[in-house]
Amino acid sequence: MALGWKRLVKTNNFGYHFVHQFRAVSQISYTRPSKNASFSKLSSEDISYLKRVVTPRGVVEEKEALEPFNTDWIGKYKGNSSIVLKPSSTDQVSKILQYCYEKKLPIVPQGGNTGLVGGSVPVFDEIILNLGNMNRIRDFDNKSGIVTCEAGVVLESLSNFVSEQGYTFPLDLGAKGSCQIGGNLATNAGGTRFLRYGSLHGSTLGLEVVLSNGKVLNMLSSLRKDNTGYHLPHLFIGSEGTLGIITAASICCPKKCRSVHTALLGVDSFDKVTELLVRCKDEVGEILSAFEFMDRNAVELATKLLSHVRDPFSESFPFYVLIETSGSNEHHDMEKLEKFLEYCYSGDLISDAVLAQDQSQMNQLWTLRESMPEAVNRSGKHIFKYDLSIPLEHFYTLVTEMRSRLVEYPCHVVSWGHIGDCNLHLNISSSESNESLSKLIEPYVYEWTCSHGGSISAEHGVGRVKSKYLPMSKDMEAIEWMKQLKQLFDPVGILNPYKIFSQREE
Amino acid sequence: MALGWKRLVKTNNFGYHFVHQFRAVSQISYTRPSKNASFSKLSSEDISYLKRVVTPRGVVEEKEALEPFNTDWIGKYKGNSSIVLKPSSTDQVSKILQYCYEKKLPIVPQGGNTGLVGGSVPVFDEIILNLGNMNRIRDFDNKSGIVTCEAGVVLESLSNFVSEQGYTFPLDLGAKGSCQIGGNLATNAGGTRFLRYGSLHGSTLGLEVVLSNGKVLNMLSSLRKDNTGYHLPHLFIGSEGTLGIITAASICCPKKCRSVHTALLGVDSFDKVTELLVRCKDEVGEILSAFEFMDRNAVELATKLLSHVRDPFSESFPFYVLIETSGSNEHHDMEKLEKFLEYCYSGDLISDAVLAQDQSQMNQLWTLRESMPEAVNRSGKHIFKYDLSIPLEHFYTLVTEMRSRLVEYPCHVVSWGHIGDCNLHLNISSSESNESLSKLIEPYVYEWTCSHGGSISAEHGVGRVKSKYLPMSKDMEAIEWMKQLKQLFDPVGILNPYKIFSQREE
Repeated sequence: MALGWKRLVKTNNFGYHFVHQFRAVSQISYTRPSKNASFSKLSSEDISYLKRVVTPRGVVEEKEALEPFNTDWIGKYKGNSSIVLKPSSTDQVSKILQYCYEKKLPIVPQGGNTGLVGGSVPVFDEIILNLGNMNRIRDFDNKSGIVTCEAGVVLESLSNFVSEQGYTFPLDLGAKGSCQIGGNLATNAGGTRFLRYGSLHGSTLGLEVVLSNGKVLNMLSSLRKDNTGYHLPHLFIGSEGTLGIITAASICCPKKCRSVHTALLGVDSFDKVTELLVRCKDEVGEILSAFEFMDRNAVELATKLLSHVRDPFSESFPFYVLIETSGSNEHHDMEKLEKFLEYCYSGDLISDAVLAQDQSQMNQLWTLRESMPEAVNRSGKHIFKYDLSIPLEHFYTLVTEMRSRLVEYPCHVVSWGHIGDCNLHLNISSSESNESLSKLIEPYVYEWTCSHGGSISAEHGVGRVKSKYLPMSKDMEAIEWMKQLKQLFDPVGILNPYKIFSQREE
Repeated sequence: MALGWKRLVKTNNFGYHFVHQFRAVSQISYTRPSKNASFSKLSSEDISYLKRVVTPRGVVEEKEALEPFNTDWIGKYKGNSSIVLKPSSTDQVSKILQYCYEKKLPIVPQGGNTGLVGGSVPVFDEIILNLGNMNRIRDFDNKSGIVTCEAGVVLESLSNFVSEQGYTFPLDLGAKGSCQIGGNLATNAGGTRFLRYGSLHGSTLGLEVVLSNGKVLNMLSSLRKDNTGYHLPHLFIGSEGTLGIITAASICCPKKCRSVHTALLGVDSFDKVTELLVRCKDEVGEILSAFEFMDRNAVELATKLLSHVRDPFSESFPFYVLIETSGSNEHHDMEKLEKFLEYCYSGDLISDAVLAQDQSQMNQLWTLRESMPEAVNRSGKHIFKYDLSIPLEHFYTLVTEMRSRLVEYPCHVVSWGHIGDCNLHLNISSSESNESLSKLIEPYVYEWTCSHGGSISAEHGVGRVKSKYLPMSKDMEAIEWMKQLKQLFDPVGILNPYKIFSQREE
């Protein structure tokens, strides 16, 4: 190649797998809401009935086996449920809910339990209803790319399945090896392909949902267009299991692209990162499928703490941008990407760049990006995770502000994110518990974000963590209507209680 | 050019404008629901108050001037309202609704009144609330392409505005010269760009809605990602003005493509049309921005009845496909399109093809496609319009079946549609009113569609026309929940009464 900067990087081929790790760390103090006194206590009679519904295969009761279901991924939130039900059909889910509705027994719906806002674990002793056994692909239409599957299908399996049929699943995220499509839908997951394929509200054609009273709402559809009445599925997408339990979905997948390229760019200022984004959308245009951002601190943390993660550059840069293109013509795509990189290089927008030459190198670049959450998890006992939408002009200012603000504390302030969608993942980790540190961080991060026109949750949801900050991002009138919808769909309040809406605290 | 089939077609440059025509035709008989006895009759006191709210500029009362607001575009549905209110601000809409809510005065929200299901005109004497004076663009972010505008902005104006800023509005349809974005959102309009940019559920970031009691629900957002609580705007998108009145919206627009190409293909069998679609998605891939279908009968009707419409071919074909590509690189796009056309030609998939050489020729091809509704309108006094989603394998069978079924009647059976999204527009026109003809058409068309896995409304909505057929396309449990939502958001039932849900008939 004539372009001197196009470096060949030799790597081993390794696939990244999201490791479900429960760390033996002390809990950061958090307030717990008051327990809802109207709920019943699970009796032995209830347990017998529920066990009959799901058969022995669908029950977890042993203390140790319950632990991973009761604990969230970062080990921050822990519930105390004594039973996990794993139904294997919509009918079983329906029977469980009908019973719990009548008996006033609260339920936490759970997918892969990879959420980061404490939404998928109990607060007290709610029954855990894990959808993992409902993992069948019900239908796939090879002409339209529409897949209908159950809620418990693991995202990576679903993605591989549609890929084998010549299609691309429109959602991809680091937790793909564990998270389930039902949980993705319930939390309106975003991820790295959002930039190209948009939100699940755009790609989901229909849902099957079991309501709190056990009735099955069949809204499955295999039609791209259907304007008959209100578009109910959207109510459940992103409602975090508080309005109904998603048991199946039909999703429209775009055609798989024949040609995929991945590049990593080293950049010396944040202004250049934003200029790169604008220019990349212009030059690479319709084939741009990811534009991901990492700062130096994040990259250094990952390469230091995780042996399988490598930085392909020999020197380090203040910022890194991972670009992916996906198109139908290898030659055209490469020409566009090279032209763009050439422009960047000649305009001094980038300090260095590597272009993956094979699948192994692509994996290496994506592994670097996707290992960030795990790296942070290992970097300290106390972790503060923020998933913010921030307008581009203010995107990185918060990170530098937090570094100044916390300069006296021994902690890591690292960031990465889907900058193409203005989605920043700010992470702060510390080895020592320190109340004054906590107070410097929260609610400042949320206040700063809202005062700069952002959102306190771009893609992770509200769960338990952010419920008290919800009014910062939503109009009070809108919150009132959300509560009315909750009351309408779940009048007894058994579905994922204590989540989204703030509660009176103990 | 080496390719023999690439024909140059000389045309004049003319832009197509959707002509708002009210035809002096006799009405096809239709049943009318019973009037809701709980509504009040508009008094002179009411009129005085409402006139003060909107100022004299915002009132229409003269009989002749009321006519176009009372009559739907195809002249089939006529209301008898004595007043049209044209508020110029959200505050005025709020005051009107607060008053009407208290006084139990029913309201029909109306945009450009280009709907085809009788949804935007009164059934009796409901007040017409036309949003046409709320036509300001409130904000445009040049970095993200997010536009925030009021409901009454005409789609074409909005499209031109964002185009001048270097972006593409994600929605386009034949009625663009008259229809308004508020109406588009209220009906979840589809159109020709759906194939590329998806539905309004995907591109709409936020809405401002006035509820039936006059309260303003501010859900406007300029963030691509925001997972804080339930995603309420989706409830109003496609609810046809029955849950609230959309007064403003923020919509995300993709970057404008530098290179746009349009081709028209003549095809000799429907099987080849479907093969073309599959192949086109493969070959033209990410730059495909429209794949539209017309049958010979439709094209012949348009060229015969409309002097400004021309068929570029010298001979006629059973089927026509209009393809548009939009990409970032002129050279790449043309290469892809030419390769595809060459493949089609050599594989005998197409009988003839023209590729527009300039804007004037592009306009000619799009005019042919977009003039279809007007041509049908002129072809007979009695028109039956169907907007169906039908799986590809059955897509055209209904049209041929209807021709056989109606062979003894002097009528036109023509079809076109967004075949890339499996959306068929079947139209039947007759010069004479004939009850036995009507009975042969309905409910057969709907029954056939549903028995073949389709939907009775792909993009036009339910309105008044299809309310009694709603249970054919939606589960009864889902319809019950829609009714509960209607009851929750509009307990007095003043918003667009007698629409979507079937009523007791007179």
